[in-house]
Amino acid sequence: MRTHGGNIYLSSQMIDFSANINPLGMPDAVRKAVMESAQNCVHYPDPCCTNLTRALAEFEQFPTEQIVCGNGAADLIYRIAHAFHPRHALLLAPSFSEYAFAMREVGCSVAEYTLNPEQDYQLDDGVLSAITAETDIVFLCTPNNPTGQRIPPDLLKKVAEKCRESGAFLVSDECFLRFSENAARYSLRLFLHEHGIILNAFTKLYAMPGLRLGYALCGSDAVAGKLRETGQYWSVSVPAQAAGIAALQVSDWIPRTVQYVTAECAFLSGELRKSGVFVYDSVANFLLIQASSDFAERMKQRGILIRKCEDFHGLTDAHFRIAVRTHDENLALISAIREEYK
Amino acid sequence: MRTHGGNIYLSSQMIDFSANINPLGMPDAVRKAVMESAQNCVHYPDPCCTNLTRALAEFEQFPTEQIVCGNGAADLIYRIAHAFHPRHALLLAPSFSEYAFAMREVGCSVAEYTLNPEQDYQLDDGVLSAITAETDIVFLCTPNNPTGQRIPPDLLKKVAEKCRESGAFLVSDECFLRFSENAARYSLRLFLHEHGIILNAFTKLYAMPGLRLGYALCGSDAVAGKLRETGQYWSVSVPAQAAGIAALQVSDWIPRTVQYVTAECAFLSGELRKSGVFVYDSVANFLLIQASSDFAERMKQRGILIRKCEDFHGLTDAHFRIAVRTHDENLALISAIREEYK
Repeated sequence: MRTHGGNIYLSSQMIDFSANINPLGMPDAVRKAVMESAQNCVHYPDPCCTNLTRALAEFEQFPTEQIVCGNGAADLIYRIAHAFHPRHALLLAPSFSEYAFAMREVGCSVAEYTLNPEQDYQLDDGVLSAITAETDIVFLCTPNNPTGQRIPPDLLKKVAEKCRESGAFLVSDECFLRFSENAARYSLRLFLHEHGIILNAFTKLYAMPGLRLGYALCGSDAVAGKLRETGQYWSVSVPAQAAGIAALQVSDWIPRTVQYVTAECAFLSGELRKSGVFVYDSVANFLLIQASSDFAERMKQRGILIRKCEDFHGLTDAHFRIAVRTHDENLALISAIREEYK
Repeated sequence: MRTHGGNIYLSSQMIDFSANINPLGMPDAVRKAVMESAQNCVHYPDPCCTNLTRALAEFEQFPTEQIVCGNGAADLIYRIAHAFHPRHALLLAPSFSEYAFAMREVGCSVAEYTLNPEQDYQLDDGVLSAITAETDIVFLCTPNNPTGQRIPPDLLKKVAEKCRESGAFLVSDECFLRFSENAARYSLRLFLHEHGIILNAFTKLYAMPGLRLGYALCGSDAVAGKLRETGQYWSVSVPAQAAGIAALQVSDWIPRTVQYVTAECAFLSGELRKSGVFVYDSVANFLLIQASSDFAERMKQRGILIRKCEDFHGLTDAHFRIAVRTHDENLALISAIREEYK
């Protein structure tokens, strides 16, 4: 049984802190594009996502041939598994659980490198010796979900080199990277070898998880071609393609987002700590915290949905993930905690 | 390289006879539901498609637990491959090519039972001996794409029994069945065993291929559960779920469709034959024809997009598939043929 945040369908009328979505919401241009796309849904989607890929190539300054769009980044994680049939994967713990589900679906063994809570779950050099001649694929997530830490560029470079030497695929999930300052310095882009794949998504940054749109920046035409040929022909819907094109045209979205999230992340961390909650350092749009094991239940009673983290390997029933929401919502959370634990 | 109909993105300003979409178009209620769903796309989709599955259970009179929704029927074809890892598949030739692509993606060998053009590609009893102890899965399509023939109920029953005896999965793709009269008599529903799976989609019937929405009716809770757990958590988008629920509420859609398509199918077949085109009998919303090998090119010059069928095993560059469109569009096609071949 899998668990993820954002399942608002189990409980209604809640403020959702369980999904890591941009607190600025969905750009108006995206909503408009979805509405206008309704009439085009009488046609099959463009299987090549031609216009969207062209827009992404411009936005990312990356070769069109090496970009592959998917039905959310999650679709691409499974397509990587189905395209390359890795036998031995190295994952971080704790991290996003779909990497392990996808690997196990193709019978791939999963080894985990455990992150150290005493260094705020920051990845360290020890991971290098965990990459062996046997390793076929390594999944990184930066900032890591649910711990909120980015991988230092010099370590990311070393991991990339180690993977290149041992012929392992290196997947860097950067779906949360553009919420943080100086994002470009922390991307695998700087060290991308031919077996490298960067995962990205519109889901979180443009608050459009319901549309399902992610993409992969691949280190070679061959890897991109193989990914593109794997799975069904029409994975990305007409509304998703239209929304993606519209999103990329909102020129000030990323700086506005970074500014808002950075300020609110600092505010929320500070207030939580003042309220006696243990908060791990984060540069993402979410915070990993430690609290009493009934914390999520107690917040639920007060109309606030929180992501329990006990299903993440390396975490316990005392760990919770909280999205950074709007200032008013963050105030509501703080106030609920103060009321509940007064 | 894969080929399918409906790729209107390669050529603009064409009448599209290459995709088998309902000529009545998309119901207004579906278009409205998509537009209204735009604002809900800030949330992740319901991973369980709870409301849609409930509506389908009511519509299909089938147990909720045995229904699985997917990102189009094509998504479900691949999920079947990934969930059950068949080693030996039996397919019909010619038939929809994604079955073979999906099987090969998991290293499954593909045997083909060749349909006989002299009996209008109607499936015959010979298929029974092609199902052996080695067979893990059989894919049927009824009416078959691109040949337009349904499988006679007594033969479908025998195939189902043979599959049950030999422990093989039996997948019946019924995406085009509701376009034809007396559809219920021809469904695998009547002979569904625990390893049986019926594939269906909103794509063609409700003219919403751009939204990606299909579903599987499974012969057991166990098969449905396994399919549901395979692949990503959020495969069906918010707009697709909303569209599906709206579509099922359009009460007279199917009888209106059957009446229109049956009449136009007869009209178009008759006119094509009068124009000297060889037309195979069909009960679907499309026709398989034989013509000169440059037929599609010549129609393209006249602004009409036709599906070439040379990539279907068992067909040649003289075979083409033509969708049954609106009366005016069908007249335009006939007129173009008469002009071109006068």
